[in-house]
Amino acid sequence: MESIYIVKVGGAIVEDEQRLGQLLRDFSALPGRKILVHGGGRSATSLAERLGLESRMVNGRRVTDEGMLRVATMVYGGLVNKRVVARLQAEGVNALGLTGADGNVIRGHRRPVTADGTDFGFVGDVEWVDARLLSTLLEAGMTPVMAPLTHDGRGQLLNTNADTIASEVAKALADCYDVTLLYCFEKSGVLRDPNDDSSLISVITPADFERFVADGTVSGGMIPKLKNALQAVATGVKQVIITRADAIDGHHGTVIKAEQ
Amino acid sequence: MESIYIVKVGGAIVEDEQRLGQLLRDFSALPGRKILVHGGGRSATSLAERLGLESRMVNGRRVTDEGMLRVATMVYGGLVNKRVVARLQAEGVNALGLTGADGNVIRGHRRPVTADGTDFGFVGDVEWVDARLLSTLLEAGMTPVMAPLTHDGRGQLLNTNADTIASEVAKALADCYDVTLLYCFEKSGVLRDPNDDSSLISVITPADFERFVADGTVSGGMIPKLKNALQAVATGVKQVIITRADAIDGHHGTVIKAEQ
Repeated sequence: MESIYIVKVGGAIVEDEQRLGQLLRDFSALPGRKILVHGGGRSATSLAERLGLESRMVNGRRVTDEGMLRVATMVYGGLVNKRVVARLQAEGVNALGLTGADGNVIRGHRRPVTADGTDFGFVGDVEWVDARLLSTLLEAGMTPVMAPLTHDGRGQLLNTNADTIASEVAKALADCYDVTLLYCFEKSGVLRDPNDDSSLISVITPADFERFVADGTVSGGMIPKLKNALQAVATGVKQVIITRADAIDGHHGTVIKAEQ
Repeated sequence: MESIYIVKVGGAIVEDEQRLGQLLRDFSALPGRKILVHGGGRSATSLAERLGLESRMVNGRRVTDEGMLRVATMVYGGLVNKRVVARLQAEGVNALGLTGADGNVIRGHRRPVTADGTDFGFVGDVEWVDARLLSTLLEAGMTPVMAPLTHDGRGQLLNTNADTIASEVAKALADCYDVTLLYCFEKSGVLRDPNDDSSLISVITPADFERFVADGTVSGGMIPKLKNALQAVATGVKQVIITRADAIDGHHGTVIKAEQ
């Protein structure tokens, strides 16, 4: 099978001209087929503030109301996506920007109201990814650049988590490609000591994960991240790598594998 | 040859929920392959105003400075394009949004400073359209939805006239398809009497055009529009139709043809 890299980059890097430039050069240098998934970052929040929109919080959680969805569509689907596409073109990568609505590539549904009554508004959970369309674009020499938006098939766009989009795309492509899913992160990877970059854990298998959770080596927000990664490798993704944005060549970071 | 409709719709309709809904339903009903090209409209100007950006005018002409380009990228490439795509998906049309940067489909260059010293800023003139990419998407069952933005291949997006994008796309596809280019307009078509919708001129050939200019039947802004249409039919586009947005079925309006 052909191999493919799926690289997820967060909002903080997307908004930093210099770091974004470096990342896009490194991404361009990755061999073969590849997909970039980007987050939105704070520029959506800051645009919303400039427009006088309040970030609505319900039960301590941010809600995507109609105004925020418009902003997310402008910033993620427009500004961020198109600037990344234009810059990748300048690096010789034939990038093509997509939201989930484009080519019907990712269908989502509005997240149900939770048991505690939280309605997230126009937030989408992924239903399915059209691997055939992505394959058509990839085999035609294109590099999809995916924004964190999906649609419900009835005309409604939905704000959708970029990490989830990356892992769902990875899983959908696992039947046809040897998929390496790469999460860009602020640190070198999963660390034994969060303050010591040299304490990198180089490989994590399901058995390692159970042990690391039990002994407290991984905790907090890293637990759902790793669960998500382990679920991806359990469903056919070859490997998930968590690494720094300036080290996406695949030889650094923590590798999450189904087996040792 | 397969036939294709290229429909250009202006900003005023894009911003009117009801008229847009009708147009998208009519567009969906057009048989076979099709492309939608949309303008931006006043929402870019109104967003710019809300952000406190001034519309800069030089020698009486609007200039696209960096702030206005950001707004155009957000509104045309994001908000308008993605909402149209999501709504077409709901109509069963497999729409895919594109700026010129996406898939490198339209290369532009920054408009040179004019003889009178006017620098339009980040405004692009079209260099070429990649008909092969559009063909690949069309043959894969997709319907491109094109925003009025191009790129220079060096990372710079450029604000580009939607009428021009529509005619350049039509000309580029004329080698492979029987192209009908449809301009949506406020009136029924080209009228002998601008105040009388029943005075429609049903067909205009190059010879008709010369005569109509000479006798004053067409004047003002209609002259460059028709010149543009005649140039398209002279370079292989089968016909250009100028009609009302609620009459895009191809049986109404003024048809511009190379010959009677």
